[in-house]
Amino acid sequence: MSHSVDNIPHTGGTRYDSMYAKIPAVAVGLRDADWLAAELGKNTPVKISLKTNGHFLPDAEGHNIIGELKGTEFPDQYITIGGHLDSWDNCEGAHDDGAGITQTIEVLRTLKALGYKPRHTIRFVLFANEENGARGGDQYAEVAKARNEKHVLAIESDAGGFTPRAFSFNSSDAVFEKVKSWLPLIAPYGCSEFTRGGGGTDIAPLKEQLGTPLCGFLPDSQRYFDIHHASTDTFESVNKRELELGAVNMAALVYLVDKYGL
Amino acid sequence: MSHSVDNIPHTGGTRYDSMYAKIPAVAVGLRDADWLAAELGKNTPVKISLKTNGHFLPDAEGHNIIGELKGTEFPDQYITIGGHLDSWDNCEGAHDDGAGITQTIEVLRTLKALGYKPRHTIRFVLFANEENGARGGDQYAEVAKARNEKHVLAIESDAGGFTPRAFSFNSSDAVFEKVKSWLPLIAPYGCSEFTRGGGGTDIAPLKEQLGTPLCGFLPDSQRYFDIHHASTDTFESVNKRELELGAVNMAALVYLVDKYGL
Repeated sequence: MSHSVDNIPHTGGTRYDSMYAKIPAVAVGLRDADWLAAELGKNTPVKISLKTNGHFLPDAEGHNIIGELKGTEFPDQYITIGGHLDSWDNCEGAHDDGAGITQTIEVLRTLKALGYKPRHTIRFVLFANEENGARGGDQYAEVAKARNEKHVLAIESDAGGFTPRAFSFNSSDAVFEKVKSWLPLIAPYGCSEFTRGGGGTDIAPLKEQLGTPLCGFLPDSQRYFDIHHASTDTFESVNKRELELGAVNMAALVYLVDKYGL
Repeated sequence: MSHSVDNIPHTGGTRYDSMYAKIPAVAVGLRDADWLAAELGKNTPVKISLKTNGHFLPDAEGHNIIGELKGTEFPDQYITIGGHLDSWDNCEGAHDDGAGITQTIEVLRTLKALGYKPRHTIRFVLFANEENGARGGDQYAEVAKARNEKHVLAIESDAGGFTPRAFSFNSSDAVFEKVKSWLPLIAPYGCSEFTRGGGGTDIAPLKEQLGTPLCGFLPDSQRYFDIHHASTDTFESVNKRELELGAVNMAALVYLVDKYGL
């Protein structure tokens, strides 16, 4: 899937039904796909050769990386903000999810630079293994549940480092109404909307395990599938100013949640 | 002026006060400017050499290019939509204002492809000479005034071909309230706001001469001054999908103005 018009393969996962024999699957470039469709439409035999090296490697150990600002008033209540450390294998993963990682660290840097002492404990989480099973997110939620932690909100940035547009919330109506009342306070930084919707792959287990309200940062989506899981998801495709503005919006939201609660 | 961190000169005009002798002025890259500022801060003599070839050429004839869809109900009432044909001398001008020109033509193409018969006459104007005196816009308004034309609204796209964000209106409160009521009809295409503000250099004379309400299309502005009046304002810096979405929003607005009047 891609919005691009280039001929670079925009890749994704392959899932097999255990009832059937596995057959090889490859992603081809869009122009190649068009060419192939046109050739096949001619009803004359088409012969192509493809060489693919795709294979699974055995699992290796990975780690979530977690920074914490201890809460002064509610140290046992957590606000989680994060992105994921791993990337798809064919690219740098600068947008997916280098952007989310960078923004998570930037929110931490900003709060520390301001000397901000949060009321709640804020966790800055660089999740492992989002692309290949989300086991970092699963593990984080499992540990939280085992410790009986109370999680106020979890925010994820995993939709690219583009210009800010919105935050989406997977929460109760009461929580959503409360955050919606803050929109005039966020809008000057670029997010013009709070919507209903998902949160993020890495934080989804928190909702499943603990019922934690989830929030996904939604930057402008027009360019994301130009580069998503393609070799064009490189450092150069990230605009510094847009990336920073995302962090600004995320920091503002974290601040409001910490200050006014949910 | 630039948001970029590159070392490409981001140029602009130079104006002289006739009371004083003209001195040469040049734009330098941002890193060169930082270097120069640092050197000058050292309070030791700095010697640099610059060669500049800037000069004015004599005026040449230019033309506005105007397409018209004749109104079926109010053929003597005009909706103008446009951008400017010329560009700054150091770049392709793909965003400034190739984007506005392309979108203007795309709105015309769309309305024709739909077989739409407008109630008002819609003029699609590719203005001459925006960068160097706006004489195309002046001439258009002068002719409109001489012919005693009634202009309902003039819309300009001259802020880049980026993802749509808003339309800004320079109009009476009554006109603004009316267009604001259409926001839910435009929002699905990407513009999330109607604001108060300017219209565009080429259409400004229409307001001065005839009192015409003005509207400026406002795409996301974060990347515009990365490339504005710099050699990086090239075809490759325009995203096809974002450019098309701008045209979609403009076409929707033209349709609403034509259908419901102002």
